Amino acid sequence: MTLAPETIVAVLDFFGVFTSAVAATVLAKRQQLDIFGAVMIAFVASIGGGTTRDLLLNRHPLFWLKDLNYAWTITLTSLFTQVFYHQFERLDKPFRWFDALALATFTVIGIEVGQMRGASAPVAVLMGVITAVMGGILRDIVCRQVPLLLRKEIYLTAAMVGGVFYFVLLHAGVSLWVRDLLTLLLVLVIRGFAIVYNWNLPDIAIRRKP
Amino acid sequence: MTLAPETIVAVLDFFGVFTSAVAATVLAKRQQLDIFGAVMIAFVASIGGGTTRDLLLNRHPLFWLKDLNYAWTITLTSLFTQVFYHQFERLDKPFRWFDALALATFTVIGIEVGQMRGASAPVAVLMGVITAVMGGILRDIVCRQVPLLLRKEIYLTAAMVGGVFYFVLLHAGVSLWVRDLLTLLLVLVIRGFAIVYNWNLPDIAIRRKP
Amino acid sequence: MTLAPETIVAVLDFFGVFTSAVAATVLAKRQQLDIFGAVMIAFVASIGGGTTRDLLLNRHPLFWLKDLNYAWTITLTSLFTQVFYHQFERLDKPFRWFDALALATFTVIGIEVGQMRGASAPVAVLMGVITAVMGGILRDIVCRQVPLLLRKEIYLTAAMVGGVFYFVLLHAGVSLWVRDLLTLLLVLVIRGFAIVYNWNLPDIAIRRKP
Repeated sequence: MTLAPETIVAVLDFFGVFTSAVAATVLAKRQQLDIFGAVMIAFVASIGGGTTRDLLLNRHPLFWLKDLNYAWTITLTSLFTQVFYHQFERLDKPFRWFDALALATFTVIGIEVGQMRGASAPVAVLMGVITAVMGGILRDIVCRQVPLLLRKEIYLTAAMVGGVFYFVLLHAGVSLWVRDLLTLLLVLVIRGFAIVYNWNLPDIAIRRKP
Repeated sequence: MTLAPETIVAVLDFFGVFTSAVAATVLAKRQQLDIFGAVMIAFVASIGGGTTRDLLLNRHPLFWLKDLNYAWTITLTSLFTQVFYHQFERLDKPFRWFDALALATFTVIGIEVGQMRGASAPVAVLMGVITAVMGGILRDIVCRQVPLLLRKEIYLTAAMVGGVFYFVLLHAGVSLWVRDLLTLLLVLVIRGFAIVYNWNLPDIAIRRKP
Repeated sequence: MTLAPETIVAVLDFFGVFTSAVAATVLAKRQQLDIFGAVMIAFVASIGGGTTRDLLLNRHPLFWLKDLNYAWTITLTSLFTQVFYHQFERLDKPFRWFDALALATFTVIGIEVGQMRGASAPVAVLMGVITAVMGGILRDIVCRQVPLLLRKEIYLTAAMVGGVFYFVLLHAGVSLWVRDLLTLLLVLVIRGFAIVYNWNLPDIAIRRKP
């Protein structure tokens, strides 16, 4: 079975948009934003990374202007999450896991878009990282949260390692959808371990002599 | 009498730029920014929304790079507001009303620009909202204010309702400048009521059973 | 000796990228970001101003996507600064001076890019200011610092005065690399005096009568 890259990206994209719209709405409700404020935060989080990537790559028209399904998916997901907010909250802190799913998905999408634009491997990895983290960074800035990035967790690093892994698989001749899936799983596993075990990167600074 | 859409947009635009430059300068002075810091905040607030919209729509050259009147209007308005800052302050908290006027004006401009670019109704409404709120959001982020958006006031919602109303008028066959004016007034009235009566949107979450 | 504008811009650019990557990494370490978080802040600070400028001018492909030397310079500079962080810290608060060097360099680059795109003098000065200050502003926003801009120091003003000075030199017939160098020095001197003597701009508001 062969799937067109466009199909895989489209499926992953809607999944990532859905999970990050849920995560963003939960955050917005915690910050007591009103209905449409929360919808807007869901927009920022869900399409902020891809939009940043496409503006940097000069890729127009933007995906969510071309395809209104994004806008409807985000709006309905956010409204639904708001209605059942107290029910969702009961689940054991799902926010971080939805966020982790969006991180993994958007990493793969960013790399694929970079590939489709003929970018070199480092630029494609960078696009994966930007797509993965910019939505969350913008969301946190607008919501005045301490950005996830500043909390010393393996977040951006997970996306970056995933990106490098993708190109290792590519050079090993692994087929498209397998490497997409494996990359997604690797990012999710790294980020998941970081969440569960509070993983941090070591400090690389050479200490002063006492 | 028929006015070209471009003329109406141009007149509204300078009005919106003027009011938001005043509002931004008042905020910047409260935050004790220096002369040119305040001018820059006035730039960010006055052209931030339109610039975001045009970058998203890939509409180049940007209006304020093509037409230097924007830069001069903002600079002179901001300097003038700074010189007479203590005199302005005496007026009964005009900041929010200038901000409301800019909100209403930029909503209409954003929709018109969307229309001119052949955008569908939902995208045009979205462009109205983005043009209306992004300048204020960017201003608040740079000034480290709690964004208006987070203060649970009817702000973004006013722009959105105005946008939907615009397309109702369009389908009812109302002529251009009448629907521009009515949309502007509706946004202003909604936002005005929200300011005066502290209107908030209701929480749509289903409560947990006790 | 005549140097092509492109050569001068390229040399200045790498110098500015280097100094602002060092400054950003020092800030990121103070904020206790992890390794790749600090690298990312170095990216934001070093190419944020130029990227904003190029997006506004619709200048594609972006310089750092076309030329991977930027990415490698920033990454290696940031890692190097992190490894020797405690050694650097011993030096007498170099952070502000590295930042001042980047400010001066990026002002000149922004003006030159504006000139190359055929921008009018005011737009070219604006591009100089944007290139000079946006990287630092974005860096401070992501790091949740009080933006330098808000600290009432001669920062943006130094870039602006430098920009005006550049066009004075241009009209006086001063050759390219001399006016680049003199503009760079003027910005550095103004900013340097502001750092050393705590220069501030006067308040231009007319006082109320008591």
